[in-house]
Parts: sequence; C-alpha cells; structure tokens
Amino acid sequence: MAKRGLVTLLTDFGSGDPYVAAMKGVLLGLCPRAQIVDISHDVPAHDVLAGSFILAQATPYFPPDTLHVVVVDPGVGTDRRILAARMGGQFFLFPDNGVVTLLAGAMPLEALVAVRNTRYLPPTPPSATFHGRDIFAPVAAHILNGLDIRLLGPQPDKYVLLDMASPHVEPRRIVGSVMYVDHFGNLISNISLQQIRQKWFQTDRLRIACGGRDIGPLQYTYGQSPQGTPLALINSMGLVEIAVNRGRASEALGASTGAEVTVAE
Amino acid sequence: MAKRGLVTLLTDFGSGDPYVAAMKGVLLGLCPRAQIVDISHDVPAHDVLAGSFILAQATPYFPPDTLHVVVVDPGVGTDRRILAARMGGQFFLFPDNGVVTLLAGAMPLEALVAVRNTRYLPPTPPSATFHGRDIFAPVAAHILNGLDIRLLGPQPDKYVLLDMASPHVEPRRIVGSVMYVDHFGNLISNISLQQIRQKWFQTDRLRIACGGRDIGPLQYTYGQSPQGTPLALINSMGLVEIAVNRGRASEALGASTGAEVTVAE
Amino acid sequence: MAKRGLVTLLTDFGSGDPYVAAMKGVLLGLCPRAQIVDISHDVPAHDVLAGSFILAQATPYFPPDTLHVVVVDPGVGTDRRILAARMGGQFFLFPDNGVVTLLAGAMPLEALVAVRNTRYLPPTPPSATFHGRDIFAPVAAHILNGLDIRLLGPQPDKYVLLDMASPHVEPRRIVGSVMYVDHFGNLISNISLQQIRQKWFQTDRLRIACGGRDIGPLQYTYGQSPQGTPLALINSMGLVEIAVNRGRASEALGASTGAEVTVAE
Repeated sequence: MAKRGLVTLLTDFGSGDPYVAAMKGVLLGLCPRAQIVDISHDVPAHDVLAGSFILAQATPYFPPDTLHVVVVDPGVGTDRRILAARMGGQFFLFPDNGVVTLLAGAMPLEALVAVRNTRYLPPTPPSATFHGRDIFAPVAAHILNGLDIRLLGPQPDKYVLLDMASPHVEPRRIVGSVMYVDHFGNLISNISLQQIRQKWFQTDRLRIACGGRDIGPLQYTYGQSPQGTPLALINSMGLVEIAVNRGRASEALGASTGAEVTVAE
Repeated sequence: MAKRGLVTLLTDFGSGDPYVAAMKGVLLGLCPRAQIVDISHDVPAHDVLAGSFILAQATPYFPPDTLHVVVVDPGVGTDRRILAARMGGQFFLFPDNGVVTLLAGAMPLEALVAVRNTRYLPPTPPSATFHGRDIFAPVAAHILNGLDIRLLGPQPDKYVLLDMASPHVEPRRIVGSVMYVDHFGNLISNISLQQIRQKWFQTDRLRIACGGRDIGPLQYTYGQSPQGTPLALINSMGLVEIAVNRGRASEALGASTGAEVTVAE
Repeated sequence: MAKRGLVTLLTDFGSGDPYVAAMKGVLLGLCPRAQIVDISHDVPAHDVLAGSFILAQATPYFPPDTLHVVVVDPGVGTDRRILAARMGGQFFLFPDNGVVTLLAGAMPLEALVAVRNTRYLPPTPPSATFHGRDIFAPVAAHILNGLDIRLLGPQPDKYVLLDMASPHVEPRRIVGSVMYVDHFGNLISNISLQQIRQKWFQTDRLRIACGGRDIGPLQYTYGQSPQGTPLALINSMGLVEIAVNRGRASEALGASTGAEVTVAE
C-alpha cells in the first residue's frame, strides 16, 4: 500500500502541452491527497533508453512506498502491456517496453503484474493515444489509495528488457560507451567504479579515454582541472564520467551517446 | 468556494525567470494550504490562442472547485480587464483577452465578474507590468480561502472571444486547419470527431489530407503506421490529428498552425 | 525554525536529468511534510550572477520561515564552503560563491554559519560532484524539521560577494548596464527607480538609451508603445527595463547582459 500518497511522474510529454496537467487533474480528482513530484517531462521523445537511465538514477532516492509512474510510451494503443511492479520497497507503473531495464538490474523485483482489470479504469473507454491520462493516472490513484497491485491483473511470464551492451573487459582495459549526456554536456559512461575495482586494486594510474582521445587519470571533482579542460571522474552515480570544468564535454570532444570510453592501465 | 485549495497556473513566463516563483510565494503567503499545479509556463510569449487551447484541453480533467489562474497577458497594465469566472464547477481567473475562447465553447458559464474590488488587493499599488504577482496571485489566494467571486466586482456585459475560423462543411468534405502543434510535432486540427459523425455514418472510407497532401484514412493509434510514415487519427481530445509514428509530422509535412486539413469522401 | 515546511529549490540542473528529482527524493524521505516549490532549474549552467539575480527577485515574496536552497555550484567538491543563513526572516542554504550578492544588499542578515557539522549528514561520505543530493538536501530536511541553523557550524568571518559594477552617477545622467535578459527578451538594467528619484524630482523628461540608441522617455507599461517598438519603463522590480511591445528587445536592439543603459536629462 502506498500510504504516503507520494507519486512521481516521468514522461516525454514536454512542459508546453496540456498532457502532463491532464494526468495530474485525473490523479488529484481520484486521490486528493496525492503529493506529485515531477521527475522529468523532458525525456527525448520516444527515447526509452534515456527514460530508463533517468528512472534508475532518480527513483532510488525516494522513500519507501513512493509510486513512480513512467509514460515514455511510443507504443501507446498497440498491444504492448502496462505493468505495475514493486521493486526495492517502491511501486512502479510503466509500459512494458524496457523502460525499467536499468532499474531492474539494481533493485530486487518483489511483485509484477500486467494491468488488465478494467474495474479500476474509468467507465468510458480509454483513448488510443493518451493512456497516461486514461489508464496510468486512474490506476496510479487507486494504488495511492491503497489498492493491492496484485488485484490489477495476472503476473506476466516475462517483461521486456532493452538489449544493452555491457562494458567489455579485456586483459589491460575496460571498453564501454557513453550511455547518457546530461544538461551540462557531461558524458556519462556505462563503466562503474565497481567494475574498475573488481579488476584493479589501485585506480590512480589508470587512464581514461573517450572517442580515442586520452583524458588522463581519474580526478576527484570538476574544479580540479583548469577551466575548459576535459577530465574524467567517478560521478555521483558511481560511473565513469567525462566532463569539462565549467564547460561542455559533449562539445569539447564532439562526443555523444554511444561514443567509446575506455579505462586502461 | 474553492474548498480544496487546489490551484493551477498557466502562463507564458517560461521556467527560467523569477516570475512564476514570485507568484507562488505571494499565493502561499496568503493561502498556506494552497496546492499548486503548474499547467504550463511555456505558452509561446503573448500567444493567447495557444493559451486558450492548452487551457481548454487541460482544465476539464481537474476536480470540482479547482481554481485555474491564467496569465498570458500581453495587455498587462493597459485598460484590459481581469475576469473571474465559474465554469463547469471550476473557477477561472484570467485577463479579458480571449484566452477562455475555447473553454467557453465547452463549459457552461455559471458566474462571471470583472475584478475591481481593491479590498482584496494588497495595500501597495500593483506594478504596471506584473499583475500575475500583484493582482492575480493575491486574488487567487482569496478565492482559495473561500471568497465568493461575486464580491470581486460587477458582472460585465460581455467578454472578449477570439475570432476563430470554424471548419467549413462542404458537400463532400470538411475543410479545417491546424490549430496547435504539440511537443511531438503532432498537428492538431480544429475538426472534431463529432463534426465528422454528424456528416457521415461510416468513417472508414474517409480520407484525410494536410496541406494538400493525402495522409490516408483515419487510423486508431500511432504505432499502426510504419515508423516515419504520416498518419491521421482522432486524438485524445476528439480532434483530427496528423502524426508520424516515432517522428515529427510538423517537420515531415513542413506544416504548422494554420495549415489546411481536410476530411473528404 | 522553519515550521511551515516550505522549501524552494534554485539550481542550474535543467529539467531533463535525474538530479533535481534525486534531491527531492532525499528531502521528502527525511521530511515527508516538506512543501517543495521550484524557483527555477534553468539558471544558465555555472552562472552565479544569474542565480543571484533570480534569487533576489523571487525569494522576497515568500512567507517568513521559508527555506531557500540554492545549488548553482560550479565549485562543488572543492574547498568552497556551504553556508546557511537567516535573512529577512527566511532561511537560505547556498554555496559560498557569491550567489547571495544581490539578496544580501536587500535583506538584513540575521544569522550566518558555515555548514560543517557532519552529524546532520548521512553516514555515507558525500559524492564529490553532487552535493545538492548528498549535503544540501539532507541539511535542508533538518532545517525544515526544526534544527537551529547555529548548530550546523561556526559563524564565518566573511562570505563571498560578487564584484558587481554599480551604476555610475554623472552630473546629467546615470550610466548603468543590462544585468539580466528575461524569457521575453526584456533587458533589465541595474538602474533603480530609487536612484533616479534621488537625483531628479521629475522623471517625465528623462530619456533612456540602451547600447547608445535612444529609447525615449519612461513609459508606464508595455502596451503603450506600438507593437514592435522599443520602450523603457520601471519594471516590477523597480528597475529600468528596455522592452518591445509583443516583441523581444534583446533581438530588436542586439543587446545582452553588460550592454550600457543610460538615464539622462
């Protein structure tokens, strides 16, 4: 039971249109005490991988029983399923398109159902193009009001996971790639400190490269390099990140999602 | 009386400046229990028509007694009036510049007053350029605190409505236009399913065109067309919409607000 | 004591990444009744001066005991301090980089401490790159929960103020500059009505210029000039502002932050 009434929204709807507000109106009509927090509505349109990254990085910091509603849903109205899950003590409602891939690797899955029970949907049939308003929001309100998610439908045999490349561990280096570029132009790779520590005792002689360009050893924080100079560090997510002190690494290095990142002896 | 304390804000202030926060500070100072929901602050600057569209599409989903405050107000400080209304069981506070045009066609008008009573304004005279902070916010707080809007001023004889072209019904087709382009590049027309059904029993042989280009028959949802292909459908607002599956119709068709949309036998 | 639980956030994190949500998750986990208001997350990256302007213009409108958390913090992880202050009856938590410069000139400083007491931080060491989540958010929650800020650390001898040019008063004119360009393209100068009134009894014959171009006398509001024509007025902050009725002064005049603004006889 989501007894706090705390619910987050993560969508690719943007902030200019009436879509997010319509969802909030439905939610607040059915659960007046809902406390709504926007994770982001600026996921790039239809970008399930970016949504998965943001979801995995933001939700672990919320208190137990928070409900996280994800509507990055290019398959809306097709036969893709809507899933409700309990993971790591929190609730999640999301389209079955792989958007939980990165989260599922980090949080224990405690319950999973396919949302099918029309009893918890409004009497009017949902639109084909806006399930956020017509299905996700009313179902979210029921979960906030205490509905046991197991009543929403049957447990599915499996769910969609994105086919993501993991970093490749070679004898003298780890080869990964840029997974996400943030607002500051920081290049966030899929290589974790954990993976580095499994391979090497000492990290201070390792050298990082991005797109074939040497960035130097791991630094502690942005301000340690001269302004405008690229540097590498372990970021607040425990991942290797390439940044530029008070600048934009994505522009300085001409790199984006998918660019090769290596950690080498 | 707006007993819930639920209030929405719709402005063209953007999200980078101190303007929206100043309004919220005034509101929360006068009504600490106010529950504020942002509809959008990204209405294109001074675009009363876009504001009218967003207002009409978002507010019907909010619960009774919600107060909606609209500050898309290029005439701030001139002799344009500020109006307070009750429509469809909800409250609205807005500049008298036509921003309620689309809403007024969809919701019954239950009360309307011109805001004049200075008793409900702060003792310092309002600025000439920021009535959102100096008039709308304090008046909104009073409405949330239970003030009968009829005490705000006299009922006006009339109010401003935008002069909008309705779709033109011809013997074998309906000719409308694009009214709004959303975040996904979807082209939303002013032709409604209701108008189509009044004219034709069967809709599956109708063909949609946009800017003179044939888009084909009405589809059910985005995912039914191959990726990158334009399609037409009835959207979640009940309006004919031209979209591209996982793409941007506005770019694929080079079309924008005002482009001709036809539904033809 | 911040008894209301009202807390605002002002950052340069943007709205697309997981950073703001992670802060909110930590805050709500430690202080469930926190009422969070976003001032803005669109401060230009690393722009302490813009942050200072927005902070000074938004926060005075909030009720007593509101806590304002500022994370425009290019020096994160270096030896820059984090300060907590009480000013004008409100609380502020911010990096010691000058972001309070404009506020400090307008509000009485009632208490100031350097945040050092690790007792109020989580047991895991903070990341080097995201003090918003790992230090600001938990400390903010403690302040909202009633912690006396004097327990956070010692009073510092001094704090950083930005070296800002004040307007220059000459015999027949005041020479200032554009301090901020807002969402509408309005050019907001650092010349205040107060300064003008100290120098001249009558203001209706004064002429304003921007970037050497005459803009004419002070107007009352935007709608007084023909559409597209530049005008000058005293804005809602009491500052000389150059605007274009339903247009963008920044583009019409090709002017930006730093451009010269004069008020002359």
